[in-house]
Amino acid sequence: MQDLSNIQPYHTTLPHVTKDNWRQLAAEKREKRDKLIPAEWTLPASLVEQAGKDVTGVAQQSGILSQKELEITEIDEVQDLAERIAKKTYTAEEVTVAFSKRAAIAQQLTNCLTEIFFEDALKRARELDAILAETGQTVGPLHGVPVSLKDQFDIAGTELTQGYGAYLGRISKRDSALVALLRDAGAVFHCRTNIPQTLMIGDTFNHVFGRTANPHQRDLIPGGSSGGEGALIAMKGSIIGVGTDIGGSVRIPSAMSGLHTLRPTTRRVPYGHATNSMLGQESILSVAGPMARSLNSCTYFLRAVLNQNPGNYDATSLPFAFNEAAYARPPTEGKLAFGVMRTDHLVTPTPPIRRALETAIERVKKAGHEVIEFDVADFTSYRDLANKFYAADGGEDIRRVVSAIDEPVIDGVLVNEATATENVFALWQLNRAKEAMQQAFLDKWLATAKETSTGRPIDGLLVPPAPITACLPGNNRHVGYTSFFNLLDLPAVVFPVTKVDPSVDVLDYKPISDEDKTFVDDYDPKLTAGVPAAVQLVGMRWRDEELLSLGEVVANLCDSKNWKQ
Amino acid sequence: MQDLSNIQPYHTTLPHVTKDNWRQLAAEKREKRDKLIPAEWTLPASLVEQAGKDVTGVAQQSGILSQKELEITEIDEVQDLAERIAKKTYTAEEVTVAFSKRAAIAQQLTNCLTEIFFEDALKRARELDAILAETGQTVGPLHGVPVSLKDQFDIAGTELTQGYGAYLGRISKRDSALVALLRDAGAVFHCRTNIPQTLMIGDTFNHVFGRTANPHQRDLIPGGSSGGEGALIAMKGSIIGVGTDIGGSVRIPSAMSGLHTLRPTTRRVPYGHATNSMLGQESILSVAGPMARSLNSCTYFLRAVLNQNPGNYDATSLPFAFNEAAYARPPTEGKLAFGVMRTDHLVTPTPPIRRALETAIERVKKAGHEVIEFDVADFTSYRDLANKFYAADGGEDIRRVVSAIDEPVIDGVLVNEATATENVFALWQLNRAKEAMQQAFLDKWLATAKETSTGRPIDGLLVPPAPITACLPGNNRHVGYTSFFNLLDLPAVVFPVTKVDPSVDVLDYKPISDEDKTFVDDYDPKLTAGVPAAVQLVGMRWRDEELLSLGEVVANLCDSKNWKQ
Repeated sequence: MQDLSNIQPYHTTLPHVTKDNWRQLAAEKREKRDKLIPAEWTLPASLVEQAGKDVTGVAQQSGILSQKELEITEIDEVQDLAERIAKKTYTAEEVTVAFSKRAAIAQQLTNCLTEIFFEDALKRARELDAILAETGQTVGPLHGVPVSLKDQFDIAGTELTQGYGAYLGRISKRDSALVALLRDAGAVFHCRTNIPQTLMIGDTFNHVFGRTANPHQRDLIPGGSSGGEGALIAMKGSIIGVGTDIGGSVRIPSAMSGLHTLRPTTRRVPYGHATNSMLGQESILSVAGPMARSLNSCTYFLRAVLNQNPGNYDATSLPFAFNEAAYARPPTEGKLAFGVMRTDHLVTPTPPIRRALETAIERVKKAGHEVIEFDVADFTSYRDLANKFYAADGGEDIRRVVSAIDEPVIDGVLVNEATATENVFALWQLNRAKEAMQQAFLDKWLATAKETSTGRPIDGLLVPPAPITACLPGNNRHVGYTSFFNLLDLPAVVFPVTKVDPSVDVLDYKPISDEDKTFVDDYDPKLTAGVPAAVQLVGMRWRDEELLSLGEVVANLCDSKNWKQ
Repeated sequence: MQDLSNIQPYHTTLPHVTKDNWRQLAAEKREKRDKLIPAEWTLPASLVEQAGKDVTGVAQQSGILSQKELEITEIDEVQDLAERIAKKTYTAEEVTVAFSKRAAIAQQLTNCLTEIFFEDALKRARELDAILAETGQTVGPLHGVPVSLKDQFDIAGTELTQGYGAYLGRISKRDSALVALLRDAGAVFHCRTNIPQTLMIGDTFNHVFGRTANPHQRDLIPGGSSGGEGALIAMKGSIIGVGTDIGGSVRIPSAMSGLHTLRPTTRRVPYGHATNSMLGQESILSVAGPMARSLNSCTYFLRAVLNQNPGNYDATSLPFAFNEAAYARPPTEGKLAFGVMRTDHLVTPTPPIRRALETAIERVKKAGHEVIEFDVADFTSYRDLANKFYAADGGEDIRRVVSAIDEPVIDGVLVNEATATENVFALWQLNRAKEAMQQAFLDKWLATAKETSTGRPIDGLLVPPAPITACLPGNNRHVGYTSFFNLLDLPAVVFPVTKVDPSVDVLDYKPISDEDKTFVDDYDPKLTAGVPAAVQLVGMRWRDEELLSLGEVVANLCDSKNWKQ
């Protein structure tokens, strides 16, 4: 009944791709993609030239979108958009055209897209309009809402390269479980977004599609690996998108592009039949999570997903519905208690990151809540263990994809034969160490009940999402602040709090190590002026609903949606 | 914050145990255990001699238990017992003494115990009685209920050998998460139960405690690996106990001793800080599950565990409460649809096992439900993959425990250097195959909606729990009927339906292979006359509550509690 042969092609370069033709095939692929942008949605050359570093306002000046289309794409809340479609304020067709136009503009300015499905999206939107007109009913909570997808989520019949030359021309045979689920909930898929080759670094560059730029400052990277998604949504070419996170890959690009995101606990949002690097690596599972312009949009997404019963789409997903009772906790009127982990003692948060964290602390305190210190002294062992899992195959997975065509592995990917874990028994011992760390962290968390005035353990933990804001290519070298919570498998949200201000974000500390010094040396607030500085809030395992509820409280206190003002 | 050194001793023979003294230490250990049975609870030699093969009735004749104590220990339902303690019909002390006496008798006749905690249990029971007297409140749903534990669940300050000579004298530093949780729910721990060395076979024998006998026919094995638990509960020395299952280890002994059990889906019942073989092996996770004298007792146990929030005890457990709404489905008045998998096409179910399955089919049909065929043709690949995971370290885990003292590995444990999976990358590919199989099985399950008259997929799948009933040592060689569902991680209940009857269970089929022939050759209904024949019912992943609800319906239709009559 199972066909094991269907899992083999994953590590095989497709027969028509060779050492000699793959760069040409990649160029043709890019050209084909660009041609899917209608001529009338192409920006005038003059506008592109004058666009400057921050291109988030170009759509408004472009003349490509009507007033109504601008209004549609400026909506932050998925719930708001979904309700307006359901009430026929907008048709799904109008909404799809509006976001497609803006996605096309985003592509021209940041190179954030891999696949363009504008035509299919329009067709589906019209179908949905017809269904609503005919039945008076929406097909689900995402009826007519455009959802963008990281270049890992298969849509049957479409090409998916995962940023590898070896996979040029690969046509998906089956929808990813999440794609099937979202479609049943009414979503419209208008595009897929760029990633780094291998998916294993916090940047967005590959040899097929090239580099994606940060829309707030195009000299800077959008983070990664879901960086195309981050750039697209910051450009308002999508109201919500799906990224994945194995070490910070929805949180880092969200932090760097001023978005809101949730890294859910494992096994809640279906990952089945999605393309990925290192499939079968189960020690630290990658998770799919929403990236959006508000945390409530992430909540709306998670509710839509869970209430569709992921267990009916994906054999590895929990079948539990969105827990409304848990989301109703903690009471927004009751006193909350937060822990704060100010540093990982490896790389010191730079001034804007520290300021964002201090701002969040100040706001929650001012609202009557409590913040206690939650220091993790021995962070190195956590980081080292996470890195061991990522590299346990000694890079064999990557080599099998790139070697036949001599595709170079991008800078920053640090796995090689020397990083391999010796054998299966040795891997099991690493798994034991992981579980011991998870238990020790839970014990520490629960023990805070003795310190808080609420008598409960802390409700959430405030942590920097990274030591730095958006940066130059090559400079995003420390993902320990996020991968920590992949190792522990704790849910985490990220939201923007403020922006870099060179007049206040003055370097005022000495590096604690050689590694730390490299980040101090990189620090340049004039370069990063105006880019977002975000905060990470971590919850208890599988209590995603409670975390989102808590996150919305804190994000609102921080006025996160207006971080740029 | 985490101390990795605390996970090291696991693979280290304790310093005082040597090649020369371990057998002597084991003998002393057995003697020490036996001395914990008070003289007045010792069976008269004459009674032991005359006891015969079936010893389940000896307690009644022994004169050791009072009428009230017999009445207490004859209760099948945990809920019933818990309510009577809560209503002060019985004190916790009376209950503990009654089950301790009967456990002592079970030990003398079947050698089912490893550790005896009668004194500590009595002390705890008195505390609980005092709390109830003082506050009028029970501490939790298991207030005063004796719970027996497989010899894997640590209780701080007690010895736990896991049936290994190398671990003689090992004192647990911390309670297992489940032990802490059950204690908070009011449970009293009166004993721990025997297992096979390595835990990896369906029998119960090790060099420290020897062999456990099947109480229904003492020439036969009780199955395993939770075979001590099975024998104890069949002897009514415990009303409910906790076993573990990585390939059938709660289901096989329950089937062989006439008990009711649930193998829960992973991550629901805490396994944290329990001792185990092959810790860190995560491809097929072992799970803890209840073994009892009714399925409703299993339900009562699961409800108690989940409502205590496992996530607060164990970093790897889901924090979701018992889903009462799911348990209320399927409606007992509505029509249900079942699949039936009659054979795995590797080892044909012997006549009593087939008769048990046919009886279950007949009863559910007679009650107005539907049964459709659900055949799995290519079973070999499932079995082979499960076996690969069990042996992926090439036996290194076991060798590290036994080699320093030259403890022989017991017969039937088939792992050795040759079975090792080559490297971490190869293991990842096996994990991918597993996930593909899980998805294919889910697809197949959901597709039955087209075949049933309910319009829904099948509600549950009826399967033999094993091809054979209780058997002679060495003959339980095929655990594919249970390990299949560990690989798929589906919840499964097992309950008895009938007993072997040599007059009807006549051999009437030809073996389909050489392997099958060995089971035909073993078949001897005169030897196994009167032992239970059980059925397995499988549910959807993480829908344990629905499965229990369904299981109770089917078990009641089969009059499972009266299988021996």
